[in-house]
Amino acid sequence: PETKLPKVGTTIFTVMSQLAAEHRAVNLGQGFPDFAVPERLIDELDRAMRDGFNQYAPAHGLPQLREAIAEKSERCYGHRPDVNAEITVTSGASEAIFDAVHALVRPGDEVIVLDPCYDCYEPAIDLAGGVAVHVPLDPVTFAPDWEKVSAAISPRTRLLMINTPHNPSGAMLGQDDIAQLTALLRGTGIFLLSDEVYEHIVFDGARHESILRHKELRERALVISSFGKTYHCTGWKVGYCVAPPAMTAEFRKVHQYNTFCTFAPAQSAFAAMIRAEPEHYEQLGAFYQAKRDRFREQLLTTKLKPLPVPGGYFQLVDYSDVSDLDDAAFCRWLTTEHGVAAIPLSPFYETPPAGQRLARLCFAKNEATLDEAIARLLKL
Amino acid sequence: PETKLPKVGTTIFTVMSQLAAEHRAVNLGQGFPDFAVPERLIDELDRAMRDGFNQYAPAHGLPQLREAIAEKSERCYGHRPDVNAEITVTSGASEAIFDAVHALVRPGDEVIVLDPCYDCYEPAIDLAGGVAVHVPLDPVTFAPDWEKVSAAISPRTRLLMINTPHNPSGAMLGQDDIAQLTALLRGTGIFLLSDEVYEHIVFDGARHESILRHKELRERALVISSFGKTYHCTGWKVGYCVAPPAMTAEFRKVHQYNTFCTFAPAQSAFAAMIRAEPEHYEQLGAFYQAKRDRFREQLLTTKLKPLPVPGGYFQLVDYSDVSDLDDAAFCRWLTTEHGVAAIPLSPFYETPPAGQRLARLCFAKNEATLDEAIARLLKL
Ligand SMILES: CSCCC(=O)C(=O)O
Ligand SMILES: CSCCC(=O)C(=O)O
Repeated sequence: PETKLPKVGTTIFTVMSQLAAEHRAVNLGQGFPDFAVPERLIDELDRAMRDGFNQYAPAHGLPQLREAIAEKSERCYGHRPDVNAEITVTSGASEAIFDAVHALVRPGDEVIVLDPCYDCYEPAIDLAGGVAVHVPLDPVTFAPDWEKVSAAISPRTRLLMINTPHNPSGAMLGQDDIAQLTALLRGTGIFLLSDEVYEHIVFDGARHESILRHKELRERALVISSFGKTYHCTGWKVGYCVAPPAMTAEFRKVHQYNTFCTFAPAQSAFAAMIRAEPEHYEQLGAFYQAKRDRFREQLLTTKLKPLPVPGGYFQLVDYSDVSDLDDAAFCRWLTTEHGVAAIPLSPFYETPPAGQRLARLCFAKNEATLDEAIARLLKL
Repeated sequence: PETKLPKVGTTIFTVMSQLAAEHRAVNLGQGFPDFAVPERLIDELDRAMRDGFNQYAPAHGLPQLREAIAEKSERCYGHRPDVNAEITVTSGASEAIFDAVHALVRPGDEVIVLDPCYDCYEPAIDLAGGVAVHVPLDPVTFAPDWEKVSAAISPRTRLLMINTPHNPSGAMLGQDDIAQLTALLRGTGIFLLSDEVYEHIVFDGARHESILRHKELRERALVISSFGKTYHCTGWKVGYCVAPPAMTAEFRKVHQYNTFCTFAPAQSAFAAMIRAEPEHYEQLGAFYQAKRDRFREQLLTTKLKPLPVPGGYFQLVDYSDVSDLDDAAFCRWLTTEHGVAAIPLSPFYETPPAGQRLARLCFAKNEATLDEAIARLLKL
């Protein structure tokens, strides 16, 4: 058939995970932890199934989970969204992003994305009949240049998509970014989509500038997150969207006709878990910071040069001392010849910066996994 | 914001379930069983979590589940789809329908739907920029009139959506329908979407005419099903799509950027379950037929007149001896005044037949639930 997404192939994450499996490489590519889900969460899910939470959940999400999300938001960001009118549970943040774009973007609308950006943004925009307008982040710090964003705004701009902590770089928006973004959007009709799936993986005492903290911005924003990163269960696919009532109403129209609702027992389990261990959120940064620091020390003994990682669970490395290959070729070579799978940055760009020699390594792994990867990287 | 789905509100299933809860009505509205999920399935899911199936599944679905689906298809329909190129696991049949429509329907394309039809079809078509062309089924038998379908075909027709066993009526396509449909589509470029979620709930020895049985049709078809109805777990949201390789490739492009993948432990559990109890499929018809027959006998003692139910788990009743209200008003009244929630048929139509006095009751319930409903309906 004539194709609707002519530019789209298989996601880079699938491609590299398959290649890693074929070559028995240590898989630091696709972002997922290789350690266990909290025992309590499994027990809670088990209980939920045996208690009979096995039929359709309400399309907007189980009430007790929406309640727990509201409490968590209040505790973490000082803002309590309305449980009935402002929170919708989805099948992962991916579905939430897809629904949000389809709810808002009309044919011909422009959507500003900041490159490098996660690979599902543009296909969702394309399918909704919108036009992605790519604004580059700084190629070294991955900070937004708000003047460039401002220059990209047109009368057709409908939506701006941001992501903090940022995948693939780990860069985080600061208070100054928030001030500039607020000024930029003031008086416009532009909506904001804030992808915050790494919200609780932040380092060095930094504060995550959730859009939920910022009244003026959150009144035009869909804030999207998920439990996959926070609870080490990327395969459970429970996410959510927080947005003002009118935007939530539009969002839910799409959601209810897309997946309708999300695996019910996991919703019950997350509700119980969030309440049972509220301190989990505060401890997660330290847990991952130890991994980051240890991995960085080890990387400094290789020919790869690690970049700073303010948040998230990805380490960018500059490989220019090792190879002149472009990043896609380098990551294939690293996987097939050296047994370490990494993710190239070019799929996150419309136009990758010329000569950029960066690859992404996931450090959400056991020490043994990272040690084995380092042993192999030392041979570069 | 200006809305993209101006005709859409909250689904009738959500509305009626909420009303049922508020009025402590026996909920025979939204279709879901009120009895237990097979113990073995819960045990398998539990095992999968503890065995560590908690990270992203492959976007196309766990290999062992695709394998089990292929085996089941061969056993039930004599056709074994290719595990790698023709099967994709989704977050319920809903997501599969949404993905299929977005993969195929281009702006301005026409999609033929047969009214009454499930309420998620048209919003998916609208969001994809397509135009739904409604062809009525027979208002008494709910059989398609293939000449009317033929007359609705235009050069812009891209897709035809069918559903057998049919929701809300339970009507099933027969071999004669298949012959006419095959002749109708021969030589056209029209794709077929076959929604078969009630495939294993068929009665009186009838044969489910899965499109997978029919070579010429399946070469242009996306066949969509789910495990929710077959294993009494509508809230688990694991479905799948079987389609030829080129169509599957397009389908997966959308799927991977919509939900990416589906709750991994349930995929492992269904794979184990399908293999452990292949006879489950053959027994399900008899299990539900006993419920249907018992419920029908009881209904004959009330003023509601039950229609024939060839498949599925819904009983249509003619309420014209009870009330002159239209079906939406009748179902509200039945819920609030008589404590039995039902689903009106009008939301399944673009233009409901004038004077139709039918309501849908779900009999996927324990005997005690159905007995209580009958006790209340006897007071009509
Ligand atoms: C959905 S697979 C990709 C996982 C991920 O978020 C990443 O690796 O960036
Ligand atoms: C997704 S809620 C509706 C369930 C169902 O299939 C029905 O009641 O028809």
